[in-house]
Amino acid sequence: MVGSAMARDLARDWEVTAADIDPHALARLSQHGVRTKQADLGDPHILRDLVSETDLVVGAVPGFMGFQTLQTVIESKKPCVDISFFPEEASQLDVRARDQGIPVIVDAGVAPGMSNLILGRYAAEMQIRRARCYVGGLPRERRWPFAYKAPFSPIDVIEEYTRPARLKVNGKIVTRPALTEPEFLDFPGIGTLEAFNTDGLRSLLHTLEIPNLAEKTLRYPGHREQMQMLRSAGFFASNPIEVKGVSVAPLDVTATLLLKNWELTPGEAEFTVMRILLEGEAEGRPRKIQVDLEDEYDVDSGTSSMARTTGYACTAMANLLLQDRFSTPGVHPPETIGANPVCYESVMTYLQERGIEYRVQVNDGGQDE
Amino acid sequence: MVGSAMARDLARDWEVTAADIDPHALARLSQHGVRTKQADLGDPHILRDLVSETDLVVGAVPGFMGFQTLQTVIESKKPCVDISFFPEEASQLDVRARDQGIPVIVDAGVAPGMSNLILGRYAAEMQIRRARCYVGGLPRERRWPFAYKAPFSPIDVIEEYTRPARLKVNGKIVTRPALTEPEFLDFPGIGTLEAFNTDGLRSLLHTLEIPNLAEKTLRYPGHREQMQMLRSAGFFASNPIEVKGVSVAPLDVTATLLLKNWELTPGEAEFTVMRILLEGEAEGRPRKIQVDLEDEYDVDSGTSSMARTTGYACTAMANLLLQDRFSTPGVHPPETIGANPVCYESVMTYLQERGIEYRVQVNDGGQDE
Repeated sequence: MVGSAMARDLARDWEVTAADIDPHALARLSQHGVRTKQADLGDPHILRDLVSETDLVVGAVPGFMGFQTLQTVIESKKPCVDISFFPEEASQLDVRARDQGIPVIVDAGVAPGMSNLILGRYAAEMQIRRARCYVGGLPRERRWPFAYKAPFSPIDVIEEYTRPARLKVNGKIVTRPALTEPEFLDFPGIGTLEAFNTDGLRSLLHTLEIPNLAEKTLRYPGHREQMQMLRSAGFFASNPIEVKGVSVAPLDVTATLLLKNWELTPGEAEFTVMRILLEGEAEGRPRKIQVDLEDEYDVDSGTSSMARTTGYACTAMANLLLQDRFSTPGVHPPETIGANPVCYESVMTYLQERGIEYRVQVNDGGQDE
Repeated sequence: MVGSAMARDLARDWEVTAADIDPHALARLSQHGVRTKQADLGDPHILRDLVSETDLVVGAVPGFMGFQTLQTVIESKKPCVDISFFPEEASQLDVRARDQGIPVIVDAGVAPGMSNLILGRYAAEMQIRRARCYVGGLPRERRWPFAYKAPFSPIDVIEEYTRPARLKVNGKIVTRPALTEPEFLDFPGIGTLEAFNTDGLRSLLHTLEIPNLAEKTLRYPGHREQMQMLRSAGFFASNPIEVKGVSVAPLDVTATLLLKNWELTPGEAEFTVMRILLEGEAEGRPRKIQVDLEDEYDVDSGTSSMARTTGYACTAMANLLLQDRFSTPGVHPPETIGANPVCYESVMTYLQERGIEYRVQVNDGGQDE
């Protein structure tokens, strides 16, 4: 879904080849001026051949094969922007990318992605004492029971609901169970959403000097408690249990059932919402900043908000490399890009041109807006 | 649990033999003056031998073997009181019991059981236009997430949450999905409970002339919605699904997980609550009646409220037969017994002597109490 939106977007200005193991995914692309190649990207030899004639690689493979894919691209000496969100530390590939003299941007989505870019910008301008990032992708219609639809596998969502969340408190990395510390936040046109701890900070835990830092996931109220109930009762357990002589992991049963419940129907309206709250000091005075994103499903093109916000963030950063606005060799998280005002503005302008607006409110003097 | 409470109660005045396939269940009984016999009651030959020397049989076997067991007892010409709550229509055995000249009382628990007895009494005294029976067994401590403990298998509880509820509206039997039409009711010392449709009326659907009649199950608020969520998402489905190459029924996985969550800890306090609301006319004037039961776990004897209220209702009715206060041949639901004032008072007195009180409030003239 995201890959197709990116390929079509890049094909406006560049010659694009899309590769996928699934011919059906490719078939839809060829009518949009994108060259296609069916290929097993899990095979490093095939991948190396494939990227050999390109100027830039955009990586959007399933997380489990992301690290190896990026490694192969770096070995092939190709600049790359990646949204595979793989679990390994991307910084492990930094030295090799520098040796190869190529720039790589990882985690180039919304959160991680734009949240890093924005924090990177303000961390370069002010001293941030406390930052919160709230983010969620939700269906417009709130249907009982879950009031949730996932454009990706329930297994990945459940993983977010089970993996302990790392955050920073007073300069130290601490761990909280996922789904904890709920807060209600109001969003114009949407209403009240519930935010809770999930493990989404990734590189931000280490790169920026922000002593208090957390990312929380947004859902309609009620969903969090349902998930906590399922988790508490054992429905998310990955260890198999014996059920009438069969060994099965409750997690796999739950994911199978939730797949049907969480599937977006074709054309179903969904939106992406992100709010970043920063507190700190600039030029000796208290400063608060609030950045809001609210993006809707695009009815005309049929492009989901998830694909728009994630995909265009990635293509915006790809354009930075393609236009040589950023060329520092190494593997960079987006906070490094955001610290560069030209790059920051370039990404924001690129997104605005596609109707994606990050609204910024700055409040100096410490009063609430 | 219930069987043992009954055997001990009857052994005060009578010679009792307890039979069970499980020697451990029997071992606990022998120290209470109960003779014990390990036996497979599923085998009609064994059962026939076993009952041949008794004056009365109390049936308390798992529901699935209840009908066959009662049939064998009737063939053996033994009076019987039964709380196996089997799914088949007990009235099918009525003719045979009459032929044999023996009285049989079925569904002799709380609800079904005492609710039938009480409705039977008032239906004989007044014209009931509308009757509601609210009943539940709950743990004293309300623990998140389910605020529920089951003294029996989760499969049986889930069956109550899935089987459509039959009730009577304007004289007609209608069907409503289980868990629907929630109501909040307040109980002194307990607080607010939530009632919802379950299929519990059994013989009452056919025996009494009450045009509007419903039974609802009581739980702590929140439980109903959790169960409706699980049901709606497919967790109660009994058809197997394919999960990573294994075929498994979600219901079996759910029941396995809930078993741990719903298990009463040893000595855990629980209570039984029932409220019957009747509206109608007596002697040409409007009459409302409210009957309340609230029974607690007995700390001294370690007897659960579930065992007390169900078991002693059954032994009270057993004593009716043993003392020849009721001897009409046939298979009778408790509403027939309740219509007989001597039997009704005898049962109530028997229960009062054991600390189980059904409090009755009568309101004549139609004003609310």
